[in-house]
Amino acid sequence: MARFFMAGTNILGGTAIIRGRDAEHVKVLRLRPGEDVIICDGQGTDYKCRLVYADREQAEAEVIEVVPCPAEPSVKVTVLCGLPKGDRSDYAVQKCVEAGAYEIGFFSCARCVAKPENLEKKLERWQRIAEEAAKQSGRGIIPRVFWAGDFTAALDTAVKKDLKLFLYETGEREALDAVLGENKDAETACLIVGPEGGFAEFEAKLAKVCGLHVCSMGERILRCETAPVVALTAIMYATGNLS
Amino acid sequence: MARFFMAGTNILGGTAIIRGRDAEHVKVLRLRPGEDVIICDGQGTDYKCRLVYADREQAEAEVIEVVPCPAEPSVKVTVLCGLPKGDRSDYAVQKCVEAGAYEIGFFSCARCVAKPENLEKKLERWQRIAEEAAKQSGRGIIPRVFWAGDFTAALDTAVKKDLKLFLYETGEREALDAVLGENKDAETACLIVGPEGGFAEFEAKLAKVCGLHVCSMGERILRCETAPVVALTAIMYATGNLS
Repeated sequence: MARFFMAGTNILGGTAIIRGRDAEHVKVLRLRPGEDVIICDGQGTDYKCRLVYADREQAEAEVIEVVPCPAEPSVKVTVLCGLPKGDRSDYAVQKCVEAGAYEIGFFSCARCVAKPENLEKKLERWQRIAEEAAKQSGRGIIPRVFWAGDFTAALDTAVKKDLKLFLYETGEREALDAVLGENKDAETACLIVGPEGGFAEFEAKLAKVCGLHVCSMGERILRCETAPVVALTAIMYATGNLS
Repeated sequence: MARFFMAGTNILGGTAIIRGRDAEHVKVLRLRPGEDVIICDGQGTDYKCRLVYADREQAEAEVIEVVPCPAEPSVKVTVLCGLPKGDRSDYAVQKCVEAGAYEIGFFSCARCVAKPENLEKKLERWQRIAEEAAKQSGRGIIPRVFWAGDFTAALDTAVKKDLKLFLYETGEREALDAVLGENKDAETACLIVGPEGGFAEFEAKLAKVCGLHVCSMGERILRCETAPVVALTAIMYATGNLS
């Protein structure tokens, strides 16, 4: 069944009024009156609708059923990545959206090589990638991509969550599975991963002091764009959102 | 500590004789006699060595300790992917090696758009990507990349493993976590994912008849290059190889 986000949709009573680009979209998809479509409001709600009529300017659909989007995980995971170089950030955004991230932020820290320049353009680009990935993977929301500021700002974002993970490749760490096993019911989580150069020791210490779980993810060294996807998948698995 | 694969290394008694490209590598790394290095034989064994001498032609190192490479998972997972288009296969190879795959194969099936052409060149390329990823992530082996043949050949590879997973996006499926929960001690596993167009229904039926677990991975639709990484990570997590 055709499924799309319709930010511009008005759901009035039992009827969805589709205008502008969304109406054109309906035409492009050659949807005919009587056909069923799923209209997602981008807020986690799916409207199962039957098309009543459609022309280039406007389409109207009868709402048959309103359901929470089944693709949305029970846990809202904020993924925070140390700003990586080049297109690694694009990759991280796309894959984290597919894997179920609630929102994705980038921050600068001690070993970041990439400079936080042209952020406005980058955020536009990342948000566009997130929207495409959300549509493709059938998400119920378009995860927000944002600039999380410096390392301390990232920690401040993390401490507000039920589950706080800080992935670190050396030293004394908790086992990821042990931590996740004790937090299966978390409703909000934050996952912090470093840039190419990883984290400085003082950053890991600071994270621990702030109450984050400093975790290992096994002995394999993951690239900075791979680590968030793997850690996010572990969270989805542990919280029953991968079945 | 410097760590590298040395296929050309002879370990005779307590001494590692390093020749050819590997010896040059030692020079490039500017390693001096007395320095410790880890020499991995690419078979899952690490040799902790101390350099005795090194010139452009040959280097010699005293073996201090021989240990199984800690980065190697306890479960050997064969990842089989329906041949995808373009560079998605490169991506799948790189990420699956990082995530701990034992070997990676590609096969052709009903909905493959990509043609299995120039396979020799492609296999060379994929193997090179696998080797780079293995070195970068500190693996103890260089996972083999191979052409798995057609769909039935892929099934034949899978049925020989302890744990056999077939990831399918629709219809009646088992929950991935339920299946993995019952197979925590698997020593060998095979993971089959489809190409861009997914699997035909008859292929899923055939997989089930052959005794594979036809599994779901949640409601989010993953790209063909993302699915193997996510599924592999779930296996690593469930078998205790992600902590």
